[in-house]
Amino acid sequence: MARYAASVKVRFSEIDRAGIVYYPRFFHYFHIAFEEFFEDRVGVPYHRLIDRDRVGFPTVHAECDYREPLEFGDVLRVGISVERIGRSSVVFLYRLSRSPRARPAAEARVTVVCVDMDTFRPIPVPARCRRAFLRHMEGK
Amino acid sequence: MARYAASVKVRFSEIDRAGIVYYPRFFHYFHIAFEEFFEDRVGVPYHRLIDRDRVGFPTVHAECDYREPLEFGDVLRVGISVERIGRSSVVFLYRLSRSPRARPAAEARVTVVCVDMDTFRPIPVPARCRRAFLRHMEGK
Amino acid sequence: MARYAASVKVRFSEIDRAGIVYYPRFFHYFHIAFEEFFEDRVGVPYHRLIDRDRVGFPTVHAECDYREPLEFGDVLRVGISVERIGRSSVVFLYRLSRSPRARPAAEARVTVVCVDMDTFRPIPVPARCRRAFLRHMEGK
Amino acid sequence: MARYAASVKVRFSEIDRAGIVYYPRFFHYFHIAFEEFFEDRVGVPYHRLIDRDRVGFPTVHAECDYREPLEFGDVLRVGISVERIGRSSVVFLYRLSRSPRARPAAEARVTVVCVDMDTFRPIPVPARCRRAFLRHMEGK
Repeated sequence: MARYAASVKVRFSEIDRAGIVYYPRFFHYFHIAFEEFFEDRVGVPYHRLIDRDRVGFPTVHAECDYREPLEFGDVLRVGISVERIGRSSVVFLYRLSRSPRARPAAEARVTVVCVDMDTFRPIPVPARCRRAFLRHMEGK
Repeated sequence: MARYAASVKVRFSEIDRAGIVYYPRFFHYFHIAFEEFFEDRVGVPYHRLIDRDRVGFPTVHAECDYREPLEFGDVLRVGISVERIGRSSVVFLYRLSRSPRARPAAEARVTVVCVDMDTFRPIPVPARCRRAFLRHMEGK
Repeated sequence: MARYAASVKVRFSEIDRAGIVYYPRFFHYFHIAFEEFFEDRVGVPYHRLIDRDRVGFPTVHAECDYREPLEFGDVLRVGISVERIGRSSVVFLYRLSRSPRARPAAEARVTVVCVDMDTFRPIPVPARCRRAFLRHMEGK
Repeated sequence: MARYAASVKVRFSEIDRAGIVYYPRFFHYFHIAFEEFFEDRVGVPYHRLIDRDRVGFPTVHAECDYREPLEFGDVLRVGISVERIGRSSVVFLYRLSRSPRARPAAEARVTVVCVDMDTFRPIPVPARCRRAFLRHMEGK
């Protein structure tokens, strides 16, 4: 199994009145890792997939376990792997850590469906994406 | 069972490159309903709970099923109810609809833990909050 | 001069590590007032102007004086008026107050240009918008 | 004059219904450059300045000229320099470009005041910050 992780900095504006990162923002960090994965491992920047190929991956299910609060100044390691691939759907796993060896501060599972951006109808995952996803299957 | 729903407008800036509301933002809409619930049904604005009483409800688990995309201009109805209350933890259910009678465009379950804001240690849910949560138990 | 103001609540997530509203977000509050103005005074929701009429008003200049910090829980009054209208450009003034009679916590001037959304080329301000803008000219 | 620029990627979620970066977000990009500047040139990460030294730089004035729209996928170069330093106030200039040699897509001037984070009262700019700011004075 190939491994991939993006590095994300927690910014001044990303915390809430409780002084920690606002919980919906974790999903934003996962999406940043998703965008970087396309650029680095699929070989097609996500904006090109959407704008030129008219292919997108809207989310149909998302879940996250929050184990530890994040703070302004944290430099996060956001690992991404693939749990399952169907014809159109893909299940991604995310593990977010505050330092390389720390146990995850959050773990998430996000299911997306590959769609034609003009109709929003499901289409088969393009071969190029499928190959990259398969290389990053969890546990392989 | 008492019912509660907040009204939330989708703003110009809240969509993504796919032209629909960015999926992490659904959790922001749920949090707005949560804030409004405190003001309208608990009788303590959430900012006062945090700033004056030093009590907060950080999220430990969140999950959402996305059934339908949302668009700029949508006026959402975000219903909130309580599925379970423990000593410190509470499970909230959210149902987000694009119009009063439409089936939910998204349904979510968010588990929070009541903490002392100075130590982030769990504390029992304050009586006032507990009473309001009990009145909004799902199915009662 | 007709007067218009939108009401905006400061949310839990909108403050920064300094505990006050993040300064770029003031411009977001101004844009919310701008969106509401279209719905209430122009008679065309902004999303319809963009999506159906393919007319938009991108910003070419923005400036803001910040006089007082804003806090989570504030209910803001965001006044909007028009300082100048050209063929394609419009200068809006915003005054943001924390309570009806308080002096503004922030004042801003935002210049927009009316464009064809398909080409991003300037076009004359549509008659319907112009009439509403003229009714809200500052000092008239 | 020492030069400094941060690199910032435009993300999937940062555009608006018009398909371009939402104009308030430019100020967020400037703030990212400001945060990076503290880490790289002042030698104190901004979060440490705030959390440990209880020193902050809230904004009292901000203005921006927008020359060109930004798109999802753009990799921005955000240059920062200092136009003027007073006892407590500092005027920063920002130039944001879509590629190294391109003319700026936006130019901004942001005035901040150095404050004691516990009282929000102005205090003299700390020596360490002042030295770094002086090294990056515009035109020197």
